[in-house]
Amino acid sequence: MSAVAHRADSALLKVLKEQRGSFVSGQSISVELGVSRSAVWKHISNLRRMGYPVEAVRSKGYRLPVEALDIDPFNEVEIASEVGAGVIGKTVHFFDELKSTNVKALQLAAAGAEEGVVVVADCQLGGKGRLGRSWHSPKGVNLYTSVILRPGIKPADAPSLTLLFAVAAAEAISAFLSPVRPVVKWPNDILINGRKAAGILTEMSSEMERVNYIVAGFGVNLNMDTTGLTNFDRAPAVSLKEISPRAGEDIPRARFAASLYGCLDKWYALYRKDGIGPVVEGWRSYFDAVGREITVDTIDRSVKGSCAGIDETGALLVREPSGRVVTVTSGDMSICG
Amino acid sequence: MSAVAHRADSALLKVLKEQRGSFVSGQSISVELGVSRSAVWKHISNLRRMGYPVEAVRSKGYRLPVEALDIDPFNEVEIASEVGAGVIGKTVHFFDELKSTNVKALQLAAAGAEEGVVVVADCQLGGKGRLGRSWHSPKGVNLYTSVILRPGIKPADAPSLTLLFAVAAAEAISAFLSPVRPVVKWPNDILINGRKAAGILTEMSSEMERVNYIVAGFGVNLNMDTTGLTNFDRAPAVSLKEISPRAGEDIPRARFAASLYGCLDKWYALYRKDGIGPVVEGWRSYFDAVGREITVDTIDRSVKGSCAGIDETGALLVREPSGRVVTVTSGDMSICG
Repeated sequence: MSAVAHRADSALLKVLKEQRGSFVSGQSISVELGVSRSAVWKHISNLRRMGYPVEAVRSKGYRLPVEALDIDPFNEVEIASEVGAGVIGKTVHFFDELKSTNVKALQLAAAGAEEGVVVVADCQLGGKGRLGRSWHSPKGVNLYTSVILRPGIKPADAPSLTLLFAVAAAEAISAFLSPVRPVVKWPNDILINGRKAAGILTEMSSEMERVNYIVAGFGVNLNMDTTGLTNFDRAPAVSLKEISPRAGEDIPRARFAASLYGCLDKWYALYRKDGIGPVVEGWRSYFDAVGREITVDTIDRSVKGSCAGIDETGALLVREPSGRVVTVTSGDMSICG
Repeated sequence: MSAVAHRADSALLKVLKEQRGSFVSGQSISVELGVSRSAVWKHISNLRRMGYPVEAVRSKGYRLPVEALDIDPFNEVEIASEVGAGVIGKTVHFFDELKSTNVKALQLAAAGAEEGVVVVADCQLGGKGRLGRSWHSPKGVNLYTSVILRPGIKPADAPSLTLLFAVAAAEAISAFLSPVRPVVKWPNDILINGRKAAGILTEMSSEMERVNYIVAGFGVNLNMDTTGLTNFDRAPAVSLKEISPRAGEDIPRARFAASLYGCLDKWYALYRKDGIGPVVEGWRSYFDAVGREITVDTIDRSVKGSCAGIDETGALLVREPSGRVVTVTSGDMSICG
C-alpha cells in the first residue's frame, strides 16, 4: 500500500492535535483550512477511516480525545501534520513496506518528482547501506526515509552534501536525546557510545556536467530492540530509545521524521545561501576523532595515522607516522583501541 | 515493440550472410551454432518471420539470396549479427520507437542490466541532448543508441569518460567516411565541416563514492536529409550520407552501430588497462581548435581566448589575452570567425 497525504487531511489533523482534547467548531476548521463545511466533514471522515477516533458533537464541533494523542500513529497524514513550512517533506509518500526507500525515491525523481518530496516506509525488505551493504529494517520501530533534492550542482560537488545529511541527522537525533550527544563517524554514520544509531546512503543521477537529482536515504534506529542483533558490518547497532534519558518511552516516529526534515531544510537553505562552509563547520562539531589514532580501509589499502579532520570537500585527512597528510575520499574509518 | 535478439538467430544470420548468396547445409549450420537440426529450422523460421527471405532447398540447404543482402534491415538480429566478440553490444534491446534511448537504458541498468547491454531505437520521440536540450530523432534514417557501462569508478572520475565516447564515435565515423575526417567539438559533439554529425549524452547513477552505472547515448546522423532543418542549438546538422565520398549511398545502420560498439569496446578496454591517458591522446588527434580563438559560454559567464587544449580530466583550457589560463569544466565552445 502506498499513499500521499491529502494536504487538508494533515492540516485538519494538526488543528485537532493542537486542541489537546478540546473541541473545535466546524466553522473554525473551515476558516483555518480554507475549505467548505462539507469539505471539513469529508476530511473528518478521511481521518476516521485512517483510524483516528475523531468525535463529533452537535453545537461543540470536533475533537480528538486526549487518549488518542498518546498513541503514535505512523502514516502519511500523521507525518505531514508534523512537518513545518519548509520544502523538505512537503509531499510524503508513505508505504507499509518497500524494498528500499532510496530505490522508490530514485524512481519518483526519474519520473519528475520535485525537490523536497520524501518517501517513508514502515519496513524495508532490501534496505541498502553504502557500497552495496544491507541495512537492517524491521517493521514498526524505526524510520526509513529518503529525500529528493535537485541542487543543480556538478557531480564533483555532490560528495560534500553527504556532510549536510549527516549534520542534519545528528542534530535531529540530538534534539530527541539531549543532553546525550551523538557523534558523526566519517563519512556519514551517526554513532552513540560507539554504536550505530543511523546510517545515510546518498545516491544521485547526473549528466557529466550537472546533477539531475540527489536522493538521501536515512535509516534511523528509533525504537528497535538491538539485544541479540549481530549481523552488522562494523559498529554494533543501538536505538535512540535504548539511550534516551526518558528510558522506556518510545521515540515518536512521525515527530522524529518531521524534525529530521526540518533540520535538513535548515542546513540545505544555509548551503544554498552560503555554500558548504557552514555545513563543514556544523559537521565538525559532531566529529570527535580529530587527534585520535584511526585506521581507514579503502578499496585498495589501509591508511593508519592520526585523524587530522576533514577538508572542505568532505575528504578525510590522516596524518601518517611520517608526518605526511593523506587525503582519503572513500573508505571505512575506525578509531583504534 | 521491443525485442532482444536470440543469440542463435543472429549467429545464423551471420552464417547466411557470410555465404554471400550460396547455400549452406543444415548440418554445417547445426555444427557452427552448436544446436540441433530441428533448432536450426526454428531459427530459420524466426528469421523468415522477421522478413528475411531465407530459401530452403532439399539436399542443398539454406541460403539468403544476394538481393536480400543489398537491403539494409535495421533490427535487433541484424545488429547482433554484425557485432564482434567484445563486451559492448553483446545484448541489443531494439525498439521501433522510444522516448529516449538513454531513459530506457537507465531503466534497464537500474533493473540490473549488465555492462555492455545496448539500447537502439529506430526513432526517438523525446531525444535528449546535453543540459536538457533536445536531439532531432526522425525515423528510419539515423542511429540512436545508448550503452550501459559499469566501470566501478568514482563520480569525480566519470567526466573524463566523455572523451572516450567522443573518440570512439569519431573513429567509427572516420571509418565510414575515409578520407574525410571528423573533428571533436569540446566536450563531445562530432562535427564535419563545422556541422554536427553526432552528439553524445552521458548520464550516470552513483553513490557519492562509487558510480553504479554509466549510460552513454549516441545520436549519429547517418542518412537524414538535413536540407531545410533549422531548429538547432548551435551548429547546423549534417548526415554522414551527405558527406560520404560514396555519394548517394546509404550508410548501413546496423553495420555502423556494430562498428561504433567495436570502437567503444577497444577504447574502453584500453581505458581499463592504461587509464584515461591514451584516451586523451586519441581525443586530441580529432581536436582541431588548439591555438584558435574561441568563446566558451558557461552557466555564469563567457570565456574568450586562445584554445590551449584539454587537461587529463577533459576540462577545456583557455588562454585569456592576459596570458592567464582558465580551466572550464562545463560549457559550450565555439570557434571565433
